[in-house]
Amino acid sequence: MTILIREDAASVATLTMNAPERLNALSDAMLAALQQAFDTIANDPEIRVIILRGNGKAFCAGHDLKEMQAGRQANDGGAAYFKDLFDRCSALMQRIQSLPQPVIAQVHGIATAAGCQLVATCDMAVAADETRFGVNGVNIGLFCSTPMVALSRNIGRKAAFEMLTTGRFANAREAQEMGLINWAVHADALERETMQLAATVASKLPAAVKVGKEAFYQQAQMSVADAYRFTGDVMVHNMLDRDTDEGVTAFLEKRTPDWS
Amino acid sequence: MTILIREDAASVATLTMNAPERLNALSDAMLAALQQAFDTIANDPEIRVIILRGNGKAFCAGHDLKEMQAGRQANDGGAAYFKDLFDRCSALMQRIQSLPQPVIAQVHGIATAAGCQLVATCDMAVAADETRFGVNGVNIGLFCSTPMVALSRNIGRKAAFEMLTTGRFANAREAQEMGLINWAVHADALERETMQLAATVASKLPAAVKVGKEAFYQQAQMSVADAYRFTGDVMVHNMLDRDTDEGVTAFLEKRTPDWS
Amino acid sequence: MTILIREDAASVATLTMNAPERLNALSDAMLAALQQAFDTIANDPEIRVIILRGNGKAFCAGHDLKEMQAGRQANDGGAAYFKDLFDRCSALMQRIQSLPQPVIAQVHGIATAAGCQLVATCDMAVAADETRFGVNGVNIGLFCSTPMVALSRNIGRKAAFEMLTTGRFANAREAQEMGLINWAVHADALERETMQLAATVASKLPAAVKVGKEAFYQQAQMSVADAYRFTGDVMVHNMLDRDTDEGVTAFLEKRTPDWS
Repeated sequence: MTILIREDAASVATLTMNAPERLNALSDAMLAALQQAFDTIANDPEIRVIILRGNGKAFCAGHDLKEMQAGRQANDGGAAYFKDLFDRCSALMQRIQSLPQPVIAQVHGIATAAGCQLVATCDMAVAADETRFGVNGVNIGLFCSTPMVALSRNIGRKAAFEMLTTGRFANAREAQEMGLINWAVHADALERETMQLAATVASKLPAAVKVGKEAFYQQAQMSVADAYRFTGDVMVHNMLDRDTDEGVTAFLEKRTPDWS
Repeated sequence: MTILIREDAASVATLTMNAPERLNALSDAMLAALQQAFDTIANDPEIRVIILRGNGKAFCAGHDLKEMQAGRQANDGGAAYFKDLFDRCSALMQRIQSLPQPVIAQVHGIATAAGCQLVATCDMAVAADETRFGVNGVNIGLFCSTPMVALSRNIGRKAAFEMLTTGRFANAREAQEMGLINWAVHADALERETMQLAATVASKLPAAVKVGKEAFYQQAQMSVADAYRFTGDVMVHNMLDRDTDEGVTAFLEKRTPDWS
Repeated sequence: MTILIREDAASVATLTMNAPERLNALSDAMLAALQQAFDTIANDPEIRVIILRGNGKAFCAGHDLKEMQAGRQANDGGAAYFKDLFDRCSALMQRIQSLPQPVIAQVHGIATAAGCQLVATCDMAVAADETRFGVNGVNIGLFCSTPMVALSRNIGRKAAFEMLTTGRFANAREAQEMGLINWAVHADALERETMQLAATVASKLPAAVKVGKEAFYQQAQMSVADAYRFTGDVMVHNMLDRDTDEGVTAFLEKRTPDWS
């Protein structure tokens, strides 16, 4: 059984985590499969948008706790393994945001701990109404410190602190109001709505989306003055693209741009 | 026809963008008129609050695309012109936040691309219910990279990313929930509500509002420790103002302060 | 009469500000009592959560204006006293966030100026429905510059700017929507709901909550890459805690962890 299934259709790559019996836990194998898939797609000019979802009852339940406990057998009690594990997981999260293509999480069931971090990390997220979100590591004595990095850059401080220290679950409606996801939809509509969002983004000029996504995360970490200097250059570059010339011209001539 | 109309009443300066046939696009002329008006008002002690609005069907539809396309005729394909244009536009946005007076956007119709950036940049914003907001440059292949600087400092990441990469419009109710505007009101009440907000702020001690606005944007870019050091000094300075002495004394004596 | 009452019950310390005739103003005495209480509790391994509340009609009405005006009698017009006062107040606010235990504000009546800052500073906040929140110093010519540091790290820019420059009050429902508090509840349920939240957090592994809270505020000020490096180390450390080993093992064995 493949742990990660890739299906391409109309410029959209759908990655399906496929370890349902482990609630798609981010095991060493799953992390490696995701990292490899993203690295491959990063260089695939045919793919304009990525959808990330999970098979079975859950989107993703976070780290593989059995594997982690097994790591304690090493002479150092697991220290080196744990360090490497979190390094690989954090690299994956940052890879998602450094990809040229937008990544949409299609979420159902549960998204907990590093699974909730995946949702927070993806550029956009659509979830089925009954989905439950949690950064509940605190319940077993393992505070969700790395998931917090992504979560606290999506939602307000009071809500983030409460979820992290109480381990309580938020439902999809709350998640939408908080800013953790874009839309909560009926389970029946989840796949269709996610694909429609993907298709909309895929219909835009890929070069523009690429520079835009890259600039999005970079400018967020800058002072306003630096952010304007940086994005001003991005705009100039974008304007000088021949396809953008065509896009603007088409708009002024009230016709559809020819980007073929 | 004047491209920008200034009307003063009771310490409030109302600036009306007046190029309705171009949906108040930020042409070279409009940018220059706005910059000059703000620079003049910055040194006008009579003005305590500024309202920015637009004549015609739209608040502002962003950059003047015809003018930009004409810029491509230069030997460098427009590179120097575009760089200068975005520099001027970004300087204008930063000028709004560096003004001693608060600026309120009074928004109706549409506010798109750099027009949406104007809304995000103004200190406060009131909009008619039917207003539509978009950072929709992506639709013509020109990602709204500079508007993103202002937008992403007003609203959550998931919502910002979606608006930027799908080009979809948000209505006034959504804009209020996102944090892009303060209030969505009936179109009939727009002018009155905006003026009432302006009058409330204009009734405060101008020196206090001035130092407060300046500190607002500066401390936002600091660490918490630095922000407290900085604003602590601002508070001391503020307390030593004779008018503040009168304000506090009047409060303790349960009377209206005499700031004449 | 003690200006600050401490009551401990089941690992939760409740601190009650007790100057009801002054609406629990942050006088020199109140600031000193709070600072000392927090410093003491910081080293008390029995205490896992702190609740901060006020006796009388208000949670806290901010600085003690009478005392501040008296400070003007000094030769320097109060400059040195004011500087010291804001230094002490800002140190107290930062102490709350540097405590190993989460602090929950239990809010009723009014929370204004530095009293609203206290709410914004506490890690979590529950408020009675009729509570009114304001950063209304601008009404007396003293802009709430230091409260702004905490407020603007909790709520959106547009809302923060409006509250600061108009001095208007927000009710508890608005405060919850803005992100200033976690929950607005019926006055009758305030104490019970706050204690229940405290009890939930107190039931978690204290070492995990401690490292989590510390990392929460530190990573918020870092770039994403730095935040992941930092929290990755925190996770490794957390995993190597014997109690966390027990917590994870218990979870895998579907039993309650034995953290006695």
